[in-house]
Amino acid sequence: MDLMTIFGLILGAVAVYFVMWRGDILYLVFNLDALVLVLGGTFASTFIAFPFSTLKEIPKAFKLAFFPRHRETALEMMKIVVSIAEKVRRSGAETLVNEIHSIGNNFLRNSLKMVIDGFEQEFIREYMEKEIIYLQQRHRKVSSVFRFMATVAPIFGLLGTLIGVVQVLRNITDPVKMGSSMAVAVVTTFYGIFLANFFCLPVAVKLSEYSENEIINMQLICEGINSILNGDVPLITEKKLETFLSARLKEKNYGK
Amino acid sequence: MDLMTIFGLILGAVAVYFVMWRGDILYLVFNLDALVLVLGGTFASTFIAFPFSTLKEIPKAFKLAFFPRHRETALEMMKIVVSIAEKVRRSGAETLVNEIHSIGNNFLRNSLKMVIDGFEQEFIREYMEKEIIYLQQRHRKVSSVFRFMATVAPIFGLLGTLIGVVQVLRNITDPVKMGSSMAVAVVTTFYGIFLANFFCLPVAVKLSEYSENEIINMQLICEGINSILNGDVPLITEKKLETFLSARLKEKNYGK
Amino acid sequence: MDLMTIFGLILGAVAVYFVMWRGDILYLVFNLDALVLVLGGTFASTFIAFPFSTLKEIPKAFKLAFFPRHRETALEMMKIVVSIAEKVRRSGAETLVNEIHSIGNNFLRNSLKMVIDGFEQEFIREYMEKEIIYLQQRHRKVSSVFRFMATVAPIFGLLGTLIGVVQVLRNITDPVKMGSSMAVAVVTTFYGIFLANFFCLPVAVKLSEYSENEIINMQLICEGINSILNGDVPLITEKKLETFLSARLKEKNYGK
Amino acid sequence: MDLMTIFGLILGAVAVYFVMWRGDILYLVFNLDALVLVLGGTFASTFIAFPFSTLKEIPKAFKLAFFPRHRETALEMMKIVVSIAEKVRRSGAETLVNEIHSIGNNFLRNSLKMVIDGFEQEFIREYMEKEIIYLQQRHRKVSSVFRFMATVAPIFGLLGTLIGVVQVLRNITDPVKMGSSMAVAVVTTFYGIFLANFFCLPVAVKLSEYSENEIINMQLICEGINSILNGDVPLITEKKLETFLSARLKEKNYGK
Amino acid sequence: MDLMTIFGLILGAVAVYFVMWRGDILYLVFNLDALVLVLGGTFASTFIAFPFSTLKEIPKAFKLAFFPRHRETALEMMKIVVSIAEKVRRSGAETLVNEIHSIGNNFLRNSLKMVIDGFEQEFIREYMEKEIIYLQQRHRKVSSVFRFMATVAPIFGLLGTLIGVVQVLRNITDPVKMGSSMAVAVVTTFYGIFLANFFCLPVAVKLSEYSENEIINMQLICEGINSILNGDVPLITEKKLETFLSARLKEKNYGK
Repeated sequence: MDLMTIFGLILGAVAVYFVMWRGDILYLVFNLDALVLVLGGTFASTFIAFPFSTLKEIPKAFKLAFFPRHRETALEMMKIVVSIAEKVRRSGAETLVNEIHSIGNNFLRNSLKMVIDGFEQEFIREYMEKEIIYLQQRHRKVSSVFRFMATVAPIFGLLGTLIGVVQVLRNITDPVKMGSSMAVAVVTTFYGIFLANFFCLPVAVKLSEYSENEIINMQLICEGINSILNGDVPLITEKKLETFLSARLKEKNYGK
Repeated sequence: MDLMTIFGLILGAVAVYFVMWRGDILYLVFNLDALVLVLGGTFASTFIAFPFSTLKEIPKAFKLAFFPRHRETALEMMKIVVSIAEKVRRSGAETLVNEIHSIGNNFLRNSLKMVIDGFEQEFIREYMEKEIIYLQQRHRKVSSVFRFMATVAPIFGLLGTLIGVVQVLRNITDPVKMGSSMAVAVVTTFYGIFLANFFCLPVAVKLSEYSENEIINMQLICEGINSILNGDVPLITEKKLETFLSARLKEKNYGK
Repeated sequence: MDLMTIFGLILGAVAVYFVMWRGDILYLVFNLDALVLVLGGTFASTFIAFPFSTLKEIPKAFKLAFFPRHRETALEMMKIVVSIAEKVRRSGAETLVNEIHSIGNNFLRNSLKMVIDGFEQEFIREYMEKEIIYLQQRHRKVSSVFRFMATVAPIFGLLGTLIGVVQVLRNITDPVKMGSSMAVAVVTTFYGIFLANFFCLPVAVKLSEYSENEIINMQLICEGINSILNGDVPLITEKKLETFLSARLKEKNYGK
Repeated sequence: MDLMTIFGLILGAVAVYFVMWRGDILYLVFNLDALVLVLGGTFASTFIAFPFSTLKEIPKAFKLAFFPRHRETALEMMKIVVSIAEKVRRSGAETLVNEIHSIGNNFLRNSLKMVIDGFEQEFIREYMEKEIIYLQQRHRKVSSVFRFMATVAPIFGLLGTLIGVVQVLRNITDPVKMGSSMAVAVVTTFYGIFLANFFCLPVAVKLSEYSENEIINMQLICEGINSILNGDVPLITEKKLETFLSARLKEKNYGK
Repeated sequence: MDLMTIFGLILGAVAVYFVMWRGDILYLVFNLDALVLVLGGTFASTFIAFPFSTLKEIPKAFKLAFFPRHRETALEMMKIVVSIAEKVRRSGAETLVNEIHSIGNNFLRNSLKMVIDGFEQEFIREYMEKEIIYLQQRHRKVSSVFRFMATVAPIFGLLGTLIGVVQVLRNITDPVKMGSSMAVAVVTTFYGIFLANFFCLPVAVKLSEYSENEIINMQLICEGINSILNGDVPLITEKKLETFLSARLKEKNYGK
């Protein structure tokens, strides 16, 4: 996944560089005024719009979009849950105590702790379902910050262009000077659009995609632990979890 | 939170000031015509669109967006509810009578009053759930006024620009005069966009964020009081409320 | 409410008049071509888009947006329903027969008639709920006509501008004539935007607001009559209706 | 209804004709290039976007939007269903066998056939509800084709304008020639906007309106047949259907 | 279906070719800079926005949109399911073992396997419903990639135009050179709009349509197998499946 993002960044940069180099206007790539206005305006609006408790998640989320954590695939997660089901079937939930610290997934570990601690099935199920709902809500909030930035960035680019146009109009009797001022005005819109569509929007979409994958894994765990608590034989547990899995494996057979 | 908003306002003002100063067009920052048309038109549309009962909430909501009331975090609220659960467990709901006036949160206080007054559990639960639904609806209504203003402000900016363009066209044979009229025309769009994206939209988003946080606190209280009325031991009550809390605490561990 | 709408209309008119007067282009306020195209096109599209049964509601709805009917506040409505609950408690539903004609609210009167006529509770509840759903649907339909008009009006303004631009281009060698034709072209867009954002959209929003208020009143009545049929004591009925009410009264304490 | 559509078409045509005649540019109404590009592009995109099974419904749906089938009003439909309820009450469902072929409404006739054939009530209810859901889905699909066309038509108009602008720019040194080329470029956008807002969008809206009316009639029939199968007396059946009806009749009293 | 897509592609190409040929600007159809920027930027954004696991489905989905797999119509699928119902009725589910490999539809085959393997009805029903939900989710994800591309393609076209405008402004004193640069600038927007509305958006819509058809078939199978497991006689099974079918057949009678 990481490779794809890097490839995307390079491809985009090369495409823009190539076209600007062919047009002999590479000197326009960096413009202080445009940068100050677009970045300053976008961050300012975002700071006003969101409370600090939301904003402080942004740097981490941004990093996460480019360097995703390792996450078990649905197939791996199914195997883990099924192997737990088998142990519970063989020697009871108590034997999990020793192994619980080697489980990497937080949600699975916490849920199993509650099983070991002897909470009622209904209580554990409700607890897990609420965790999923509130995680989804929190993820949506973080990705909505990037969507907000993708909305206002081009608008502050436009503001910069308006400022530039005013400057241009003062030089309206001098076509050469007018042309060069206009170029600067155009760059601001360029920055706004580029920031929105090359960083903010793709990051928002990628965070949503990662969130969706994590939620599916959590639903798989929730279904699996429920099946264990129901006393299903491990084979039935596996069959139940297959629906999550086949959703992935069938993807590979999509075109057949 | 307040600091972030102030920082955002300063950052935005500095960015715009810097760019206009560099472009030597600071004299354009204030323009009477543009101000009259954008503010007048936006407020006029808003006055027509919303009944007075909704409009009269706006100044308070605007103030609230910049100077938020102190609100308990989910962690603090959980501790309060759990301590109440312990008192009720030890000495019954009646002992709350003396302490109820020291509870700062309206919703918690009102709900506890109903518990003391001996209303049935089902009745209290329904009452609390309806309160949450209607508060949500009322909050949405208030923030929708700001979204409406964010929609019409740039359009009245555009109207001003159209008026400006007509003036410009009358001076079409005189390029210098035309340029200066055009500058004024452009300022109106500037005002409209600035008002929408720097005030109205961020305020609407922030009010929604605050509303969401308040609703989560209320759901926590609702869950807690239900748990108390169920006769759960305080430990179970705490565990039940943890799902709300962990949603916050896990945020801190988001990047790990 | 009415006062606010009038104030909004005056404020908007004054703002536009002031700016046009300052710009010395008041003569442009009225333009036959622009008026014919924008109004003609908007009404034509609307006539094609909606069946006659929907269109014939529009004049009344338009009037209603500016001259709203008197409607009981939630507080008044609660008092009426509670006083009915007390009468029913004291002397049975039959005693309502004499008073039923003095009840101003149609929905309350019709529902009480069904109570007097001895229909089953379940039947009455379903009847009332369906009434609310279909009223909501009908209101949404009417306000969607105004939203449709707000969508097409600026587009027909743009069409007029396109026609104007063609005329302008025929006079491209004569800058003075071109300027005056361009002014006319611009006015059509002005009309389209003004019609959409100053009449259609605010009217659509106001109708939705009024509808929402009426629906809340009807839900209050529905809840109240159900409580009466349940045989609740009037105090419980009052407490149940308080959730609707407090939603309003708390609004007054919003900023505290 | 039909009259209203015809009136709308005439009103729109007259408004455009009047304005173009006043501007002395009637010769621009027909332009081959613009027509080929806008119609060709719009139809081409639509052909690619929708499978043939959806596309073949379009001509009929288009015709239906302008020449709607006769459909019973909710009041007429209620009377038909109530009279059936009375017959069933008097002499049993079997007596309907002779009359069933005189029933014009397909859905009512098919549902009654199932009653006569002795299917279980639950089975008939599920069957009718599924019919309603799938009809709604099918109607939505057809009207979405017109919405798609309304989205792409102005964009192909814009494409034509871009092509026109390129031609214009080749003649940039010759203002007169440039003006006339520009006029042609503008006409393409005109066509695109006109097609979208005068045909596609209104047709899509009208089909949705008709669909909604048909669905309400079907819900009335479904409710009525259920009431008959419940063994309700015809008076109760009538009262139950009144909620659908009053939704219409109250519309007439909307402004009182 | 395939024929319609090919016809659409040819129609669109001919319309654009015809108009460009008439305007004598065919040489503009291919422009390297525009192609690099629009395709490069669009793919780059898409690579950043979606994880690799989603992206790798795109080529197959693209192919599928133009060369759809053969799929049973609802009518054919109903006949298959009914014939299975008859066999099960006659000689029990076990006799299906021999025929199961000749069933082309994956979903039907897998579901029947579970029937033969003796899973409980409730288990099979839940399994099938989950399969449908996750397939829908996966299809939506794939078609959302094309919608994302349709959103960013015109924006990268605009970026190219901005770059072109800057170049134009450098030659502002030389009208002839300016004109030809401007033409190139315009072509980039042309490419962006064309790519979005002629490929990405129609493909996204078509994939949604195909998905909807496949989902309806799966719901038919789900309903049918449930009916078989309920022990319904084949006639009832057929009647139950008719609601899916008639939704299609009635389409043919839509205009009557």
